[in-house]
Amino acid sequence: MTKIVILGAGMMGTAITIPLADRGHDVRLVGTHLDSDIIEEIHECRFHPRLRRTVHENVKPYILMGLGEAMRGAELVILGVNSQGIDWAAEMLGPVMQPDVPVIALTKGLAGDGQNLQLLPDVFRAGLPTHFRNQVQIAAIGGPSIARELASRQHTCIVLTGTNQVLLDWMAEIFRTPYYHIWTSTDVVGVEVCVALKNLYSLAVGSVRGLLEKEGPGKDSVEMHNLAAALFAQGVWEIGYLVEYMGGSLSSIYSLPGVGDLYVTSQGGRNTRMGRLLGLGMRYQEAKAAHLPEDTIEGADLAFAIGPTIINLVKQGKLNGAALPLLLRMIDIVCHDAPVEFPWDDFFVQV
Amino acid sequence: MTKIVILGAGMMGTAITIPLADRGHDVRLVGTHLDSDIIEEIHECRFHPRLRRTVHENVKPYILMGLGEAMRGAELVILGVNSQGIDWAAEMLGPVMQPDVPVIALTKGLAGDGQNLQLLPDVFRAGLPTHFRNQVQIAAIGGPSIARELASRQHTCIVLTGTNQVLLDWMAEIFRTPYYHIWTSTDVVGVEVCVALKNLYSLAVGSVRGLLEKEGPGKDSVEMHNLAAALFAQGVWEIGYLVEYMGGSLSSIYSLPGVGDLYVTSQGGRNTRMGRLLGLGMRYQEAKAAHLPEDTIEGADLAFAIGPTIINLVKQGKLNGAALPLLLRMIDIVCHDAPVEFPWDDFFVQV
Repeated sequence: MTKIVILGAGMMGTAITIPLADRGHDVRLVGTHLDSDIIEEIHECRFHPRLRRTVHENVKPYILMGLGEAMRGAELVILGVNSQGIDWAAEMLGPVMQPDVPVIALTKGLAGDGQNLQLLPDVFRAGLPTHFRNQVQIAAIGGPSIARELASRQHTCIVLTGTNQVLLDWMAEIFRTPYYHIWTSTDVVGVEVCVALKNLYSLAVGSVRGLLEKEGPGKDSVEMHNLAAALFAQGVWEIGYLVEYMGGSLSSIYSLPGVGDLYVTSQGGRNTRMGRLLGLGMRYQEAKAAHLPEDTIEGADLAFAIGPTIINLVKQGKLNGAALPLLLRMIDIVCHDAPVEFPWDDFFVQV
Repeated sequence: MTKIVILGAGMMGTAITIPLADRGHDVRLVGTHLDSDIIEEIHECRFHPRLRRTVHENVKPYILMGLGEAMRGAELVILGVNSQGIDWAAEMLGPVMQPDVPVIALTKGLAGDGQNLQLLPDVFRAGLPTHFRNQVQIAAIGGPSIARELASRQHTCIVLTGTNQVLLDWMAEIFRTPYYHIWTSTDVVGVEVCVALKNLYSLAVGSVRGLLEKEGPGKDSVEMHNLAAALFAQGVWEIGYLVEYMGGSLSSIYSLPGVGDLYVTSQGGRNTRMGRLLGLGMRYQEAKAAHLPEDTIEGADLAFAIGPTIINLVKQGKLNGAALPLLLRMIDIVCHDAPVEFPWDDFFVQV
């Protein structure tokens, strides 16, 4: 039995408690300041209102004030916050964590400071107290994992990535169940770049649904899977370029973190719902305000987080814009309210 | 205006007439002996009963008896037969074709003679008359292209592959329209292996639909996209191994022929319909006979075509079976009526 603290009681932070609790671990689920209602409801009736699932009896819910208490004796910390909460998570955990307690990030994303792209585990590390930040071992989970499916114990295959293979094996054993299948990878860069970018490319794939609806059923009632598949392929193509640019391995692309995660994210969820609205002809700001004001759209958050840096790196000639026509278009769509139009002739350029 | 003969008036052979006719070419659509009813209906009312589309006025339909007449002055021949008809197509065309007329294969598949895997363009070439078989230029089309969508002029992105770049550029220009987007590639092996294998892996992805139905809606009404995505990723992973084994380029995998075509094939069609039946618990022979007796299931045909050769190559140590657990399982499911069960622990092995 391992004592595990999860910070963030959203969909994924709570879904991950299921395999952990099934394995009999001591799981402590700590809500952020935004999760107070959720924690209260779990306290009252052990039900998670957004995940719409009963929370396992092995899981102890805590409000944020109880983080220090929850961390007592913790052997593993899991970050269940979203990409915008990663700095905050470091700030909260820094004062209460021991440097020898490893961390696993569920959070997907990249950051940009105008000059460089950064992986979220590195952003988290940078936010920890100076005197021990370099001692903390940080791993991450990537791969196709819709929270509600995992919470329903549907077969889910993921990759645990980190630099320390012994630690990865220990972590994998903690999580592994007959439905939660785990591989390990030391290609942190490849995994992190893949799982972050998939959110933005799934906006593109999702826009096809809107384009089809806009066109109306009159046109022979066919789908637009050819178009969706081409955007999917261009997404994978560009992810390949960026993984290589960042120093990751292509093998992460043609397995779970790359094609697997982009596939699952393209089948549904908030990114594709936003994509549909964009395909219908709405501009991003309008669609967000009118239809998804309360929802985190990770693909859009990524565009805001890295858009200016990507554009700058292209201007400086460090990134080759010819290799990233879809990424640049998606940044334009999200950050500058551009319409959905695809630069076909620029796709699949060998650089 | 180019004079183009298409042999095979099935879904794809007929769909490809749309961009060609839109470009004003002289298109001659020749039915096989199995297409006589289709050709008759096109003659009578210019309607294709299976594609459910009007045939363009620039397209002249021919029954097989008229192949010689249709070939008069032909500048390009397109193979629209299915994988089982490729030998037959060579036999029919051999006596009536000129060696300087290039051929484009729409047909997807691989062949196996027990000792080696063969690309279909090579099988076609081997079936041509000895005295000119080595002079004929053969190209192929790969990428995500559902026939009915192309016939409805939905955006479709494909790759033309062949060894002669000048010829590829000439061909691409013949086909290109504002909705039919074309790239060229000299990686014939990579493209052909990808587009053949996707049919078999989409059976696996499609089986998830059946597994979900079998489980019933009682289980929290979630989907099984995580599982489908993991199978998708394992499929791409194994395609990567086989492309390298056959001497192709990995770049074909993470673009249109690989991930693009597997994506589109996993979204629907006959392979996924068969996959669903398998997931429901039916054995292949039973499902085929009871539900899809008249349909070509390209993924199953591929399993029958290459299964014994793959198994033999693994036995001989030429292929590493550890790299192909899903392929071997799918061959077992199709060729030996095995049940759908996935060997999770064998997935994503680095070899």
